[in-house]
Amino acid sequence: MNNSYDKLKQHYLKIDHFRHLGAMTGWDQAAMMPSGGNKARSGAMAELSSHIHQLSTQPIIEELLENARNESLSKEQQASVKEMARAYKLSTVLPEELVKAKSLAGSKCEHAWRSQRPENDWNGFSKNLKTVVQLTQEEAQIRSESLGVSPYDAMLDIYEPGTTSKQLDKIFGDVKIWLPGLIQDVQEKQKLENYNQPNEQYSTTAQNELGKEVMGILGFDFEHGRLDISSHPFCGGVPSDVRITTRYDEQDFVQSLMGIVHETGHARYEQGLPRHLAGLPVGEARSMGIHESQSLFFEMQLGRSDAFIHKLSPLAVKHFSQNDTSIFNADNLQKIYTRVKPDFIRVDADEVTYPAHVMLRYEIERDLINKKISYQDIPELWNIAMKKYLNLSTEGNYKDGCMQDIHWTDGSMGYFPSYTLGAMYAAQQMATMKQTIDVDNAVQSNDLSPIFNWLSENIWQKASLLETDDLVKQATGETLNPSHFKAHLKSRYLD
Amino acid sequence: MNNSYDKLKQHYLKIDHFRHLGAMTGWDQAAMMPSGGNKARSGAMAELSSHIHQLSTQPIIEELLENARNESLSKEQQASVKEMARAYKLSTVLPEELVKAKSLAGSKCEHAWRSQRPENDWNGFSKNLKTVVQLTQEEAQIRSESLGVSPYDAMLDIYEPGTTSKQLDKIFGDVKIWLPGLIQDVQEKQKLENYNQPNEQYSTTAQNELGKEVMGILGFDFEHGRLDISSHPFCGGVPSDVRITTRYDEQDFVQSLMGIVHETGHARYEQGLPRHLAGLPVGEARSMGIHESQSLFFEMQLGRSDAFIHKLSPLAVKHFSQNDTSIFNADNLQKIYTRVKPDFIRVDADEVTYPAHVMLRYEIERDLINKKISYQDIPELWNIAMKKYLNLSTEGNYKDGCMQDIHWTDGSMGYFPSYTLGAMYAAQQMATMKQTIDVDNAVQSNDLSPIFNWLSENIWQKASLLETDDLVKQATGETLNPSHFKAHLKSRYLD
Repeated sequence: MNNSYDKLKQHYLKIDHFRHLGAMTGWDQAAMMPSGGNKARSGAMAELSSHIHQLSTQPIIEELLENARNESLSKEQQASVKEMARAYKLSTVLPEELVKAKSLAGSKCEHAWRSQRPENDWNGFSKNLKTVVQLTQEEAQIRSESLGVSPYDAMLDIYEPGTTSKQLDKIFGDVKIWLPGLIQDVQEKQKLENYNQPNEQYSTTAQNELGKEVMGILGFDFEHGRLDISSHPFCGGVPSDVRITTRYDEQDFVQSLMGIVHETGHARYEQGLPRHLAGLPVGEARSMGIHESQSLFFEMQLGRSDAFIHKLSPLAVKHFSQNDTSIFNADNLQKIYTRVKPDFIRVDADEVTYPAHVMLRYEIERDLINKKISYQDIPELWNIAMKKYLNLSTEGNYKDGCMQDIHWTDGSMGYFPSYTLGAMYAAQQMATMKQTIDVDNAVQSNDLSPIFNWLSENIWQKASLLETDDLVKQATGETLNPSHFKAHLKSRYLD
Repeated sequence: MNNSYDKLKQHYLKIDHFRHLGAMTGWDQAAMMPSGGNKARSGAMAELSSHIHQLSTQPIIEELLENARNESLSKEQQASVKEMARAYKLSTVLPEELVKAKSLAGSKCEHAWRSQRPENDWNGFSKNLKTVVQLTQEEAQIRSESLGVSPYDAMLDIYEPGTTSKQLDKIFGDVKIWLPGLIQDVQEKQKLENYNQPNEQYSTTAQNELGKEVMGILGFDFEHGRLDISSHPFCGGVPSDVRITTRYDEQDFVQSLMGIVHETGHARYEQGLPRHLAGLPVGEARSMGIHESQSLFFEMQLGRSDAFIHKLSPLAVKHFSQNDTSIFNADNLQKIYTRVKPDFIRVDADEVTYPAHVMLRYEIERDLINKKISYQDIPELWNIAMKKYLNLSTEGNYKDGCMQDIHWTDGSMGYFPSYTLGAMYAAQQMATMKQTIDVDNAVQSNDLSPIFNWLSENIWQKASLLETDDLVKQATGETLNPSHFKAHLKSRYLD
């Protein structure tokens, strides 16, 4: 080894080896492990976490980073050092006792939540949530001092480095104005639509085979990944071996099929990251929002497009030949997959109402972390926002209101905006792509490679080499511009 | 922590956490991983091995062991310290360069062997084997000096602590006398038998469902384990989550079904190890031979017994209702599963000819490690022994002769005797069990628990608390007595 940069590289590759083990045993725990294996698995994974934490916080890293900055490095290596420094700071900024206390409080709150939610027990839940919020406020305060930004912006920075609440206030401030009206208009328009909903048994085997065929069309590389089943679908594993999951409901193929398309988007980003940077922080996905932009590009921009639905239709007919196949005709399928209906649950929300769910959570968590409101105010604020954005009341209905998500339960505050940032980035990518590529024609012609090549070149291969704003700008010619998202919704749902 | 013993305990539990990760990612590599994941996986697993090696060889262990021996310990704790000391010695006895050199030579030899074997290329293979043998001789020499036994006995000690070549010479010396005659007699007797062999397609799904039902009857705990597919069947995972595998051949249900029964025997031993000792060396299976005694107890003593075949028959008829079910009538099934035929390949050998395969390997590897012969002598010695024991010639036929196994290729010399020791221990366990339990009646009555309770109490729950000889003696009233095995073969195949 010649210099500090090489030493850092070796060290982060070592850490990555251990993270590989965590990714795979984590996948196994969700997709394969029988319940009796949980105790030993949790012990092993906690030991691994503690070992990774120890490796990630070694003071020698700081020294090597200092030295590396004075070495003659390529641009790529400079970006690499920057991301190592970011990773080091994220690992070291919090005192270990706080990390442990928060992890414990989060586990406790989540565990109790699993039974409290069905019982609509806000009183019981809020007692645990109080501790989680307090510890997260403490965390945000420390991060805030370290970064020199507001407490909430410091939490945002974990998931969306560079994004600020000033930007989000502006974005959501705008969405707030046009979205409720748009939702009403779309509902008005769709009132007149007739279509058939799934009303038979759709065998898991057929759903699985269709899902795999669609993954193939979307370029999922089965030499470097798998599809399995878990109760909460996710994309895990490592870039050279991406593990995506889905769950099948034999009453309804709708969710699972588009869920697979969604996870395939995440998977292709991971599979498409540059191999020569594998294992280094700079070789990882840029941010949660950019990751979500890929899953939503696949699911919303591509998957629910007319052209793709027309491609999907005969495949579904083929795999569900045992069923009444009229439900799979393109027109009906398209209506199923673009139906808009304001409802309580975020994870089941359609493309148009989804931002409302995110917006209300953003406003509440921002004010909570910045200590403008108390955890006790949450149900009331939730109800007010739901009425305003979606015309629904959650008064007294905690389980379908503020108790529906896991994110606050385990203290992941600052994460929610990523979902809508992802949707907006995806719309902007598609708008740009369409300037040079005939996307619909590519889908129809069975050669989708121009689409994937664009994403590979502009997003996947860039990993974390650029800051988010620069990444978006080099790909689309401008930084985040939510008007593309608005235009996309208007065009798909009102034209 | 109050004393050295507790500190040792903590340390070995920590090591076990990392071994858990290795066991699970190892299983995944064989049963789940797509081929493109191999490079990153190998890197991660090598890193893990090196970390486990580092933890296992920390000099503080020696000091703590020294101190612990002077502490006031229960009998169980004393046995625990003994096994920790054994584990420590096994980890530290070899210089790291030798371990690495052997691992490298083994990988190289094995990799080349995969293509050399089908090409019958002894010349090419022997060049790599030469290095593996040299390094294994070096290893044996160091182990020999450390243990004060012959080089081969030092290798045996890795797999069968306490067993010596003096014992094996006596055992195999005896087998050599009666086995060739027995094989001839059985063949003579079976000449007159008529039976039908599998001659249809047997669907993988039906094989899998039958396999799982049989595992259930054999008490496999699916809350603490799984059945999957891999190209080389094995039993892996950890005691609270045992992963067994099989491979299905749609032309032939025979191998896979009894293979599942075999692995279920291994699995129940692991699942039945005492929970309160989990993660400690003393809580592990006693030896490879004892492990094999459990798989062979299930496969040979129980699985191929008349009573069990009668139990299996209607189950097979049920699951293979699409097939010609006459092949599954008990009499026919019994003939399939007790057919004796001298052949070249050990892993396909029947119960009667199997010891001949082991015996000839034992004699060659013993003399090889003790430097009485050269690796170049192997093909000739193999041919001579095959003629003598099984009346088959392997002259010029290396691929079905001395190039058929992986064990020498990767330097695992000293392992082969475990297979036949296992068969003998199993026969002795069954003979003892039958003195107090009506085994056939238990099988017929659908309540096999008396059988499993006996094994649990006498073998599984004892883990490594006793030395092998003591374990066998407390279970059966005597140390290893091969006459039970001979009696079993005579009774099953000649009476």
